Amino acid sequence: MNRPSAVPPPVTAVLDASSRWLPARLGEVEELLRDSIGGHGELLGGDAGETLAAGGKRLRPMLVLLCAGQDGAEAAVRAATATELVHMATLVHDDVLDAAPLRRGRATVVATSGRGRATAVGDLLFSRAFAELEDPLRRGTPTVVATAGRERAVATGDLLLSRAFALLAGAGDTRAAALLAEASVALARGELIQRQDAFDTAISEHRYLERCRLKTAQLFACACQLGRDEPALREFGTEIGLAFQLLDDVLDVSGPPERTGKARGTDLLDGTVTLPLIEAIAADTELAKTDLRALDAAAAERLCDRIAATGALEKVRARALEMVAAAKRRLEEDGLEPEQAGLLRLVADGVVQRYS
Amino acid sequence: MNRPSAVPPPVTAVLDASSRWLPARLGEVEELLRDSIGGHGELLGGDAGETLAAGGKRLRPMLVLLCAGQDGAEAAVRAATATELVHMATLVHDDVLDAAPLRRGRATVVATSGRGRATAVGDLLFSRAFAELEDPLRRGTPTVVATAGRERAVATGDLLLSRAFALLAGAGDTRAAALLAEASVALARGELIQRQDAFDTAISEHRYLERCRLKTAQLFACACQLGRDEPALREFGTEIGLAFQLLDDVLDVSGPPERTGKARGTDLLDGTVTLPLIEAIAADTELAKTDLRALDAAAAERLCDRIAATGALEKVRARALEMVAAAKRRLEEDGLEPEQAGLLRLVADGVVQRYS
Repeated sequence: MNRPSAVPPPVTAVLDASSRWLPARLGEVEELLRDSIGGHGELLGGDAGETLAAGGKRLRPMLVLLCAGQDGAEAAVRAATATELVHMATLVHDDVLDAAPLRRGRATVVATSGRGRATAVGDLLFSRAFAELEDPLRRGTPTVVATAGRERAVATGDLLLSRAFALLAGAGDTRAAALLAEASVALARGELIQRQDAFDTAISEHRYLERCRLKTAQLFACACQLGRDEPALREFGTEIGLAFQLLDDVLDVSGPPERTGKARGTDLLDGTVTLPLIEAIAADTELAKTDLRALDAAAAERLCDRIAATGALEKVRARALEMVAAAKRRLEEDGLEPEQAGLLRLVADGVVQRYS
Repeated sequence: MNRPSAVPPPVTAVLDASSRWLPARLGEVEELLRDSIGGHGELLGGDAGETLAAGGKRLRPMLVLLCAGQDGAEAAVRAATATELVHMATLVHDDVLDAAPLRRGRATVVATSGRGRATAVGDLLFSRAFAELEDPLRRGTPTVVATAGRERAVATGDLLLSRAFALLAGAGDTRAAALLAEASVALARGELIQRQDAFDTAISEHRYLERCRLKTAQLFACACQLGRDEPALREFGTEIGLAFQLLDDVLDVSGPPERTGKARGTDLLDGTVTLPLIEAIAADTELAKTDLRALDAAAAERLCDRIAATGALEKVRARALEMVAAAKRRLEEDGLEPEQAGLLRLVADGVVQRYS
């Protein structure tokens, strides 16, 4: 298998532009992911394991492989796989955390299938993890907050996380294991900060960016560094990671739901204060008085409209584009192969194109 | 600090019997735990971090240190600390999974404190984790199932797990990181099996023992192997780990609640079928017809009485004692220092004494 199936357009652009080595290497990552997850097939449920293994645009593995370059060996494939396993673990655990409807006391949505409640819930849970990775598939995916799903999600995330470290340490890749463990610590710290700051409309931009750095950018940076230990590449990863998160946060406010697959204002209902709201408050101080705890879905949508009306979304988008431009400039500092630098630029563009 | 405070009697016995090296080494573990957790003090909350760092009988670290022996160096202290971090992560994540009252639709119990709801919940959550480690403190600890606690628990567990691997890989202890990652994979697999088998009164003893091996015994075995790579020691760890779990499962049925700090039959309410029920069904086939999903607290207590009436508890206790005896025999196979073997025998006895 030289190319993962159902890859979204930006990824296709990178693959099309590359010579044969990148698709081949990504194919090896897919196989190793399948081995890592498929080894627990009985427990994860056939479909769930398949979905996890097959889904996603593999942005982080691609960064590892591109930074490692054409001569990157087996170690790059292992590092790429382990990075994706950590990412998958956070997606699965996010499903525990972001089970907003249940948290707010509303009814749970449980889709049923012929295989019984628990299996169906588990499968949908993984579908949602997949959906997070693959925008087109997000459409119409129900939020799954049933308990069987939550229980399985915690253990499944732990399994994926542990597998990542077993893969690296088992092969003697100590440096890679250490880098990834630090990134994984950062992810959890970012999540804890998000919970700590929940519903606080007074948080600063600085604090928001620190959270994004921990929650999102550090794993991108780690992916680049795993490929090649070069400060410029690590910075490249940080910048596109931050841009990725900013654009994600714009999307939560802008929608449209038929593209994002979730209602606008989901973060707001969750109490997560992001840069669009922070910028909107700076422009319209009345907004600071909003009590996020009192929001319902309709009020959240109205708040999204008010945020958009301040011009905050354009500001945040522009900020993200600056970050992507800065990331690309980092590539000039470094002595990369022209093809390699060109492909990394395409990945950076892909982060923006997802949202254009 | 030469000795952790508030150590329970069996641990005290081991410490009293040992020469100075063990308490000193355990003190180093405490310091490293404090560094590992305390570095995130702001996020974990001062008391929570303190509680995690201070709590517990440190059974697993003690196994690492005892197996490593008096000449065990810094690496043994690191491995002992990382093992305890993984154990703590599972306790914290169990609080997400075992939030039985919420899962069954009953009211949540949220204790309040002067520091606001979220902090109080977080602290109680950690108190419960502590309580799991420290029997005397289990008395009267409320079950915490409020949402803020669950969210923090997932991220906190991830943080602890990641810190464990960061500690080992960061120091270049590749073999230790690999062993611990495999044990951590086993823990998650055991948890998934438990969920998969929930409410199924037809599960076999074999399946139950396999779950105990994954969920409990493998981390004990790993602790021993981390100390010294010797098959007999690994087997010792497996046997006392299994005995530990069997006796825990007896305790869930036998109580008394004023000693265990939780109502009898909590596992049954949770759908977790353990050896006491399996043995009871073998003796009284009528019990196989029990619908665990239909149990309430009172019915669970009555079921506990019926299980006890079959003599199942004595059978399981005897089985656990056989395992402890087998574990001790393993120590004869090995060329351990007499003091070391003597202390390991005391640890094995401690597993039983907790319940006598």
